[in-house]
Amino acid sequence: YTIVLLPGDGVGPEVTRAARDVLSVIGDFYGHDFQFTEHLIGGAAIDETGEPLPEATRAACVAADAVLLGAVGGPKWDGGKARPEQGLLAIRKAMGLFANLRPLQVSPVLAHRSPLKKEIVEGVDLIVFRELTGGVYFGEKTRDDKGATDLCEYTVVEIERVARAAFHTARQRRGKVTSVDKANVMETSRLWREVVTRIHAEEFPEIQLEHALVDSMAMHLIRKPREYDVILTENMFGDILSDEISVLGGSIGLLPSASLGAEGPGLFEPIHGSAPDIAGQDLANPVGTILSAALLLRHSLKLEDEADSIEAAVAAVLAAGAVTADLGGELGTRAATEAVIDAIR
Amino acid sequence: YTIVLLPGDGVGPEVTRAARDVLSVIGDFYGHDFQFTEHLIGGAAIDETGEPLPEATRAACVAADAVLLGAVGGPKWDGGKARPEQGLLAIRKAMGLFANLRPLQVSPVLAHRSPLKKEIVEGVDLIVFRELTGGVYFGEKTRDDKGATDLCEYTVVEIERVARAAFHTARQRRGKVTSVDKANVMETSRLWREVVTRIHAEEFPEIQLEHALVDSMAMHLIRKPREYDVILTENMFGDILSDEISVLGGSIGLLPSASLGAEGPGLFEPIHGSAPDIAGQDLANPVGTILSAALLLRHSLKLEDEADSIEAAVAAVLAAGAVTADLGGELGTRAATEAVIDAIR
Ligand SMILES: CC(C)[C@H](C(=O)O)[C@@H](O)C(=O)O
Ligand SMILES: CC(C)[C@H](C(=O)O)[C@@H](O)C(=O)O
Repeated sequence: YTIVLLPGDGVGPEVTRAARDVLSVIGDFYGHDFQFTEHLIGGAAIDETGEPLPEATRAACVAADAVLLGAVGGPKWDGGKARPEQGLLAIRKAMGLFANLRPLQVSPVLAHRSPLKKEIVEGVDLIVFRELTGGVYFGEKTRDDKGATDLCEYTVVEIERVARAAFHTARQRRGKVTSVDKANVMETSRLWREVVTRIHAEEFPEIQLEHALVDSMAMHLIRKPREYDVILTENMFGDILSDEISVLGGSIGLLPSASLGAEGPGLFEPIHGSAPDIAGQDLANPVGTILSAALLLRHSLKLEDEADSIEAAVAAVLAAGAVTADLGGELGTRAATEAVIDAIR
Repeated sequence: YTIVLLPGDGVGPEVTRAARDVLSVIGDFYGHDFQFTEHLIGGAAIDETGEPLPEATRAACVAADAVLLGAVGGPKWDGGKARPEQGLLAIRKAMGLFANLRPLQVSPVLAHRSPLKKEIVEGVDLIVFRELTGGVYFGEKTRDDKGATDLCEYTVVEIERVARAAFHTARQRRGKVTSVDKANVMETSRLWREVVTRIHAEEFPEIQLEHALVDSMAMHLIRKPREYDVILTENMFGDILSDEISVLGGSIGLLPSASLGAEGPGLFEPIHGSAPDIAGQDLANPVGTILSAALLLRHSLKLEDEADSIEAAVAAVLAAGAVTADLGGELGTRAATEAVIDAIR
C-alpha cells in the first residue's frame, strides 16, 4: 500500500509522524507493507517551491492508495499572494473529494472536560457529512474598486452524490439524516432540499430524513446534540457547524476526518489546525491524526480490523488518562503516541 | 410618537401585544403619546393580500418613528410561491436597516439554565453587529436544470457603515471589536477584513480590533464567550453565530434585537421565531419582545430613562422567578407581561 504523507505546517509534521509510527506498528503486526512517501503542501510548499500545491504533490496523491495530511497555514504566510489554504482546497478538488466525514463521539471519560454540561454531551454519537468540492469555495470571485463578490454554486449531481453517501452511512447507524440548509434565503439551498428529498424518497425511504435551517441548527447542536445521527450539509455550513461541535468532546485535538471521492484514494486529516503557537514543542495532541489513520485503514485500504485495533487502543489510552496537556494530562506528543503503540501491542 | 406594530405569524401577535401594553404603561407614566398602528407582514399578509410585504405596510413603516415586529413564518406557507420571510427581508431593505444589533447578557439568576457550564457563561456581556442588507441575502440567484447559484456581494460602503457603527458602540463598552470573516476562502471576506482594518486605523485606533475566521469563532463562542465585547460580521455569518449564542443565556425567548439604518426609523424584534407549535396558547415568553421595545425607546425615540425602566423591571421579574415555562416558570404570556408592568409601576 502506498500512503502519501503531507505533513504541512505548524504541528502538522509532529502529528503526521505520530500517525505514521502507529501505522508502521499496525503494518508489522498484521503483515502489511505500507510504503510512505512525504510531499510538500501549504506554507512549507510555498517556502520551497512558491506554490501551495506543487505538481509533484498532486501527482503523488492521485496515484496513492491514501493520503494522510497534518495541517496547513500560519501567520507566516498571511497577506502573501500564495496562501497555504489554497493547497488544501486544490488537493480536495484534484482528488475529487466530495464528502468530508467528521465523526464525533463524546467519550464518557472526557465528557466532564466539555464546555457543555455533562448531561447534555454524554453519549453524543454523530457524523457530519460535509460537501467538499462545491458551494462558495470554488465559485467565481470578483473584485473591483467598489466591492467584491463570491459565487455559491451547486449542481444537482454534486448534491446527489454526497446525499447518497450520507444516506448509506445512516443505514449502518441509527437510520436518521438531518439535512441542513438555508432554504428560506438561498436558491442553492432550495435546490439542496429538493434533491435530498428526492434521493431519500427514491432510494432510501426507510431512513428518517429531517431538514433544518443552518441558524437553528447552530442552536440545536448545543442544546440537544444527542438527537443527531448523520448530519448532511453543504461546504460552508459544514465548515462552521463541524467546527462548532468539535468542542463538545473536550478537545478538538481528538477529532479525525476523512475526505472521500467516488473512487480513488481518500484524504485523512485531523480537524485541528496548524497551531503555530505550540509547533515543534512536543505539545500537540496526536490523537486526531492517529484516529485519521484509522479512518484511512477503514475507508481507503478496507482494513477494518486494523482500524478497530487503533480505535480500541486510543479508547484504552484515554480511559487510562495517558493524555496530552489539552486534556489536562502530562504527556508530550511522543509519549502519548508511545502510549497508543503500547496499547496496540 | 408613531410606532408601527407588525405582529406577523405564530406567537408574533401575542408577544407584540405584550410589548405594546408595556409601552402604553411607560407612555402613561412618563407622559408620552405613543400612537400604535398595526400592519400586515409575513404569512398573515400573504393570506390576506397575497404578498408578504404589502405596499401599505412598507409605506407605514418608512413613515413611522419606529417599528416593532413579532415574528414571521410557519409550515403553513412552506412550498408556496410567496414566502413569509421575503416580507422580513424586503422590509429590512426598504427601511435601509444595515446594522442588526443583538445584545446578549447572561443573567446570573439564569446562568444555571444554560446548556453550557455556569462558570463558562456567567458574566457574558456581548453584542453582535450583523450587517443586514448585503451578502448572499440580496445577491442575484439563478436556477436551471443542472443547478443553482447565489451571489454573495459586498461593497466597500456597506462594510464601512456597519464597521463604524460597531466601533462606535465598542467605545461606549469595553473597547474591543472582533471582526468575523472567512478571509481564507472568500473574496468578500478579504475585502471585509481590509475595510474593517482601514476604518479602525483611520477612525478608531484606540479600540482593540481582532479578526477571527467564522469556523473558529463558532468554537470560541462556546469555549470562551466571556472574552467578547463587540462582534462584527456579515449577514449570513451573523445569522448563524447570533443564533448559536442565543442559547447561552438559557432561553432564546429572552433576547431582543434592533435593526438600524443611517437615519429614519429602526425595526425591533425578538430573536425567536414564530413558534407555531405554541402559538395562541398563552405560552410564549414575552420578554424578548418587551426588551426589543426597550431598545426601540433607546435607539429610535432616544428615551433612555424609559428604556432603562423596562430593562430594570425585566431584571427584577427574572430575579424573582416570575417567568414562563421555557425558563421553568409557571406563568403564561399575559401573566409574565403583567409581572413586568407591575415592576415598572
Ligand atoms: C483551511 C480552510 C480553507 C478549511 C476550510 O474552510 O475548508 C478548514 O477550515 C477546514 O475545515 O478544513
Ligand atoms: C427568517 C430569516 C430570513 C431571518 C434571516 O436569516 O435573516 C432570520 O433567521 C433572522 O435571523 O432574522
